[in-house]
Amino acid sequence: MKHALSVTREQDFAAWYQAVVSEADMAEESGVRGCMVIRPWGYGVWERMQALLDKAIKETGHENCYFPLFIPLSYFAKEAEHVEGFAKEMAVVTHHRLKAENGTLVPDPEAKLEEPLVVRPTSETVIGTAFSRWTQSWRDLPLLINQWANVVRWEMRTRMFLRTTEFLWQEGHTAHATRGEAVEETLKMLEVYRRFAVDALALPVIAGEKPENERFPGADATYSIEAMMQDGKALQAGTSHFLGQNFAHAQNIRFQDRDGELAYAWTTSWGVSTRMIGGVIMTHGDDDGLRLPPVVAPQQVVIIPMLRDTEEDDAVLAHCRALAAELRQQSAFGEALRVQVDAKDIKASNKRWAWVKKGPPLIVEVGPRDIANGAVSVVRRDRLYGDNGKLASAATPRGDFVAGAAALLEEIQAGLLAEATARRDANIHDGITTVEQLTAFYEKGGKFPGWVSVGWSRPTGAALEKVVETLKGLRLSIRNAPTGAAPAEGNCLFTGEPAVERVLIGRAY
Amino acid sequence: MKHALSVTREQDFAAWYQAVVSEADMAEESGVRGCMVIRPWGYGVWERMQALLDKAIKETGHENCYFPLFIPLSYFAKEAEHVEGFAKEMAVVTHHRLKAENGTLVPDPEAKLEEPLVVRPTSETVIGTAFSRWTQSWRDLPLLINQWANVVRWEMRTRMFLRTTEFLWQEGHTAHATRGEAVEETLKMLEVYRRFAVDALALPVIAGEKPENERFPGADATYSIEAMMQDGKALQAGTSHFLGQNFAHAQNIRFQDRDGELAYAWTTSWGVSTRMIGGVIMTHGDDDGLRLPPVVAPQQVVIIPMLRDTEEDDAVLAHCRALAAELRQQSAFGEALRVQVDAKDIKASNKRWAWVKKGPPLIVEVGPRDIANGAVSVVRRDRLYGDNGKLASAATPRGDFVAGAAALLEEIQAGLLAEATARRDANIHDGITTVEQLTAFYEKGGKFPGWVSVGWSRPTGAALEKVVETLKGLRLSIRNAPTGAAPAEGNCLFTGEPAVERVLIGRAY
Repeated sequence: MKHALSVTREQDFAAWYQAVVSEADMAEESGVRGCMVIRPWGYGVWERMQALLDKAIKETGHENCYFPLFIPLSYFAKEAEHVEGFAKEMAVVTHHRLKAENGTLVPDPEAKLEEPLVVRPTSETVIGTAFSRWTQSWRDLPLLINQWANVVRWEMRTRMFLRTTEFLWQEGHTAHATRGEAVEETLKMLEVYRRFAVDALALPVIAGEKPENERFPGADATYSIEAMMQDGKALQAGTSHFLGQNFAHAQNIRFQDRDGELAYAWTTSWGVSTRMIGGVIMTHGDDDGLRLPPVVAPQQVVIIPMLRDTEEDDAVLAHCRALAAELRQQSAFGEALRVQVDAKDIKASNKRWAWVKKGPPLIVEVGPRDIANGAVSVVRRDRLYGDNGKLASAATPRGDFVAGAAALLEEIQAGLLAEATARRDANIHDGITTVEQLTAFYEKGGKFPGWVSVGWSRPTGAALEKVVETLKGLRLSIRNAPTGAAPAEGNCLFTGEPAVERVLIGRAY
Repeated sequence: MKHALSVTREQDFAAWYQAVVSEADMAEESGVRGCMVIRPWGYGVWERMQALLDKAIKETGHENCYFPLFIPLSYFAKEAEHVEGFAKEMAVVTHHRLKAENGTLVPDPEAKLEEPLVVRPTSETVIGTAFSRWTQSWRDLPLLINQWANVVRWEMRTRMFLRTTEFLWQEGHTAHATRGEAVEETLKMLEVYRRFAVDALALPVIAGEKPENERFPGADATYSIEAMMQDGKALQAGTSHFLGQNFAHAQNIRFQDRDGELAYAWTTSWGVSTRMIGGVIMTHGDDDGLRLPPVVAPQQVVIIPMLRDTEEDDAVLAHCRALAAELRQQSAFGEALRVQVDAKDIKASNKRWAWVKKGPPLIVEVGPRDIANGAVSVVRRDRLYGDNGKLASAATPRGDFVAGAAALLEEIQAGLLAEATARRDANIHDGITTVEQLTAFYEKGGKFPGWVSVGWSRPTGAALEKVVETLKGLRLSIRNAPTGAAPAEGNCLFTGEPAVERVLIGRAY
């Protein structure tokens, strides 16, 4: 079978990923080191994600704000672990003017900033400073804030969506009167993320706590949702951090409690980013390009009029527009269907393949013969080929198609989730109890070995460092300790001590 | 009459503005030079503006994208006028890492960038570079792109919303095959802005072309919408630029036309920003705080339960929540009503004044007595005081209020626009025909002199420079030449030559 992309997942997964990003018009290199241009189709997915996640964030009582892009160095120096964790990868603004010199532009030495400014890699410090102004009494708590913003982390090796110097995200920041409330908030937002990933993106992520060595710099606990890509690697798709009182001490977030005593607040932060789009591509894409879950597809139905430069063209186009209008009266997932008529002056079969690569769930072709037959030709992006290996285009009575479109989209959404879940479950391996077995598994585990689930004794300090070192040698890491997993049995394969929980280990993006 | 703010517009307009921004919880100083924190109420207005404008931008065929925050110096140097116009006020990133030195953090000299990066002040250069990649044939045109983003211009004197180092905006960028199409696009988006300002923000802006000296750096023509603030000053609330082929030449945006010839594209750009929020405050605010047009108010009805720490409280709260749910079933301006119940543990009368300052159109108070009477007490923010000088709170049967709420909001929206339009019209003065009269007018024109409309011969070169100099001496500027104004009569008061159009002159933010 010939496919629409020049490289298959099996041949070269990394090259396949780049091909999908490019051929599906999702994003492209910008010419600016490590920064990408997110094209309309890719940004359309992000807009869908934003709309749904924003709703969930607001429904859980959070309000949106906007805080400065620039953070003075002095803010950053206050939380020691935090600066340690980020200092290696921040863009620093040192001047506020350019001047011409020898026919080129240079930073003007006379416009050097007294205190350099960091372009935010994350906003705990600047939002914490605002929280310290806003918090006088227990009545002011909780503070439940979210921000949609761009952030910059100077990455040495970048890959579109997955790891870019600048990326888009939302970052939630909250402050609470008690430890219990802050822990509850951390887990509540983890669950919001989990549900969003599963329900909207059809990503069967696993939520759990990260090991100590993988915590956010300055956090007391970090939780993540981990998604398995088709190459068996893990993608950390969102994180939620319980920050204890660390940032409250550093930023002086204090309040008078109900007893009149001055107390430090307990804070949390949590975020997901455009990285998730990379997860969608690597979970649902196939050798013909992207397959978008209907909930986040910018267009759910794309209608291609079969134009032939004849007198019939106008009628065909009008017919397609009427069909689109009719479909938009239908609703799936509680919203009106998103439908586009592609009337561009390009050969229809080229259009079809361009759309196959972009991955809207349904591609509908309508020509004069279809109109005469009262039918439409429907291509399901999730079942592109029939048993005969040919493109499966089903002639469907127009009325039936319109009436059934919403149900079809819901079926496709559920199907993508089921497929990804089955693949994930088939690729999480139990029964490894020694480091030797682990080593052998990843040496002989085939091209896409997946994850292993092992007993874990939660070592700390030097013992943990040793484990990290061992894993690093195998290019592995602990992804998380899944929430609600069955109780651990036996011993930790690293320390030999009794296991207190199970953790997932895998290669990761 | 005692007012909720400590300073009136008449006493000190600038101090009044700062008081509204602060007391209405719209924004605050961030501690980062020239950057503000936009608080939930202020950001809520921006979200409303975004939603409406985004819809209008998409309905006119544009798609959203995202381009890099950072622009290499070399991109910037290509359009000579453009760099001249912006080089004085840009943040420059020179390092990508910090290091600790003498107990403090400094940019790491070993992590100096080979080519410094500018934090985008506007994105013509980086988007133009993408356009040059995307444009091969006339079939690829027009390119109709929009971006919602933060931008940075290093301002020496900043004022919240009106002029901040970092601000939020949308920037549209388009490329066309012909001059005519690009001009049409420029004017179409100007009209989108004008309608949005009038219909959504109740700002009776005047659309027109800026004089040559006020053009965007690199543009062939710049159009603006100008709003009159209550102090008679002008606020440029949005701009639309016809860029000719200047950026196409600089960024090499070329295409093969229908005849197979290689041609340069014609481009446009247009933007509005968070600055508009400052315009809303200075147009509609009064001495008690902000008055928000219902279309963009984050909440249109705020319900205050009159809680008294008694057993009745639960019933009152339940009653308020039921009322809110009922109101949300109503719709105004084609959308469900936005209603909030303020159940915070604060004295009800304090709440009332906090909300008066924040300016939702309707504030409703409900206590046990109201419930017994089947009524609610309604305060209209646009008519806060009765003839007796006291707060006008009207007891209204609950059913009548619910049924009439949408119409009341529409009346308030129309009323704010009518009030602002009448004030604008009363403060545009005709009949000035000499520079002496102009000087005298602004010297003796009272505290808030408004604008004058004068004949203009469109001088260029040295003659224009002389006019600009004269106006500068009077702290005045030409705002624009209103589109569709009556034909000019008589002579230009600056050059003595026959007037070809009328222009508006005023002081400006």
